[in-house]
Amino acid sequence: MAPTRDVFVAVIGAGGVGKCFLSQLEDLTKRFATRPSSPRLSLIFVSRSTKSLYSTEYTALPYENLAAKLDGSTQKTLSLTEAVDYLAAAPAKVVLVDNTSSQAVADNYPHILSKGISIVTPNKKAFSGSYKLWQDIFTSASESGAKIYHESSVGAGLPVISTLKDLVDTGDEVTRIEGVFSGTLSFLFNSFAPTEGSGGKWSAEVTKAKELGYTEPDPRDDLNGLDVARKLTILARLAGLPVESPTSFPVQSLIPKELESVASGDEFLQRLPEFDSQMEETKVAAEKEGKVVRFVGSIDVGKKEVKVGLENFDRSHPIAALKGSDNIISFYTKRYGANPLVIQGAAAGGEVTAMGVTGDLIKVLERL
Amino acid sequence: MAPTRDVFVAVIGAGGVGKCFLSQLEDLTKRFATRPSSPRLSLIFVSRSTKSLYSTEYTALPYENLAAKLDGSTQKTLSLTEAVDYLAAAPAKVVLVDNTSSQAVADNYPHILSKGISIVTPNKKAFSGSYKLWQDIFTSASESGAKIYHESSVGAGLPVISTLKDLVDTGDEVTRIEGVFSGTLSFLFNSFAPTEGSGGKWSAEVTKAKELGYTEPDPRDDLNGLDVARKLTILARLAGLPVESPTSFPVQSLIPKELESVASGDEFLQRLPEFDSQMEETKVAAEKEGKVVRFVGSIDVGKKEVKVGLENFDRSHPIAALKGSDNIISFYTKRYGANPLVIQGAAAGGEVTAMGVTGDLIKVLERL
Repeated sequence: MAPTRDVFVAVIGAGGVGKCFLSQLEDLTKRFATRPSSPRLSLIFVSRSTKSLYSTEYTALPYENLAAKLDGSTQKTLSLTEAVDYLAAAPAKVVLVDNTSSQAVADNYPHILSKGISIVTPNKKAFSGSYKLWQDIFTSASESGAKIYHESSVGAGLPVISTLKDLVDTGDEVTRIEGVFSGTLSFLFNSFAPTEGSGGKWSAEVTKAKELGYTEPDPRDDLNGLDVARKLTILARLAGLPVESPTSFPVQSLIPKELESVASGDEFLQRLPEFDSQMEETKVAAEKEGKVVRFVGSIDVGKKEVKVGLENFDRSHPIAALKGSDNIISFYTKRYGANPLVIQGAAAGGEVTAMGVTGDLIKVLERL
Repeated sequence: MAPTRDVFVAVIGAGGVGKCFLSQLEDLTKRFATRPSSPRLSLIFVSRSTKSLYSTEYTALPYENLAAKLDGSTQKTLSLTEAVDYLAAAPAKVVLVDNTSSQAVADNYPHILSKGISIVTPNKKAFSGSYKLWQDIFTSASESGAKIYHESSVGAGLPVISTLKDLVDTGDEVTRIEGVFSGTLSFLFNSFAPTEGSGGKWSAEVTKAKELGYTEPDPRDDLNGLDVARKLTILARLAGLPVESPTSFPVQSLIPKELESVASGDEFLQRLPEFDSQMEETKVAAEKEGKVVRFVGSIDVGKKEVKVGLENFDRSHPIAALKGSDNIISFYTKRYGANPLVIQGAAAGGEVTAMGVTGDLIKVLERL
């Protein structure tokens, strides 16, 4: 049997996903400690905004009261560059877990990977920014042998990216990807245009979703479609399309032009009822065809077309029948023929997002 | 950059799945040859029933006319023991791909793994036989460091086993697994009791399915429920239940008692119409509740209950709305809450089964 391997884990970000991940990491570390064939995990660095907590001797930080210790840390706050230097000098392999949604951290991935530091992250920015950044990331990883996994950047813990990679890597031909990629917009349309009954007014549903904590602080950050466009960018690139950016294909915004520049999310919500008739018309038009309206993203690989926006579906269609804030992703491929391979389930919330990150961490550990 | 690694691949079984796999392996070998970071794959052994084809010098067998060369091979047919000795002496890591459904090959997995030979396989027998064999397999793999992957043993290429493993490994609590696990029975019930219209007579649907090649040569091998019971055994064990065997829990057979011992599948089909009224009653009883009948398997992890048989579902239930010969598998877990994580799609046929095997091979190669 091989001797125990040490692997160091560094975590940036301790918000909703970060907190859940740290709890899952603590459990994983304990389980691994009981299995001689698993590596010994040591958390050596954790940071959030301006606070850093780390072990100068590369010994494991204790998990007890970790959040409070980070809040009260008086250690020098390391810049990203300093943190990377610190990790690169570690006497064992290092996995950096980026639980932020920071573009600045994402921009540093090529550099971090070049130092042999592996990365797991739900951060969409790295994979849906410029195509050059995408190429630099995977070139850097390939050259250094460091791993980079990002399952939770699309569909949270649902096996979306791993499934698409398996299809491509085993030589299947992905012809079309279609689905509902936003938990927020899933919830909104399942309430606004349910398959049975009539649903509420659009502005009322948006307000309710915000009150339930299902939207971003400013709901326009969900309604502009950019989050969905970022996810489609990632999937399209994995399917082989060199999509330049999430704004290089048609993305329908659900924000009325007149409200694009109002100062706050609250003002936006106050004025939204003035525009209810527009969405009502959309709903009624679908109903006249016996259908319901949904906010979907789709990729036609052959035609090289990516688009995000409203479409009408038969009430019996799986996209129409979605429940709660579930996502659904259908992969149409040569091997699977007329009926797609479908993945469906919750894709929002700290626990399931962190699950995708923890699952990726395990996969990296098995490959280091 | 690391120097090129050699990995040897040995393949047992060249039937429907085996042929598709060999074609996918040829493509994979070519793709890997263009990527310096991928191992160099060499097929060194292939066998089916009494024929063996292998390279005594451990050089790669050419793919050209491989099936014909195997058919016409005059090389000494190696017994399984001889084949394992030959592979264990190879001057590089070896992955054995078992594309048979042989219990004899499965019984040898612990021995094969103990020699450091990794295994990928769609063969259900190893994982759904005695619980002792299950334990011996994973103990042997853990001790030698050899890998064993079997995605295609449940749901063919659908990411069923990998998803269940991810849920368990990341610390989620799987409470219930439910689904349609047989492409044959999916097709039969979607035709016999469709959500719209009335469907045909039971015996006519079974005959049609057989004519379309959707059943085993003797349809009783599908209708006895054992294939589904084997898949449930595998999933239950992965979820933590020490299920003793696929006959240690209730499995409903759809074979009328009187036809259990008739000599042939043809005689069975001839006499099946005598028993149509039984299945018709089942269908009508479901219809009276506004439901449709389906053949499902379910695992209640908390109650430690596994069962396979007929159940009625609302017409709007995803299990009722299944199409063609699709499978659907729902994972209910603590993290996912009320709405399950669902995987759906085709789970029969050589290409999609081989895809699961090829995907597993890639995962093993990344971990060797």
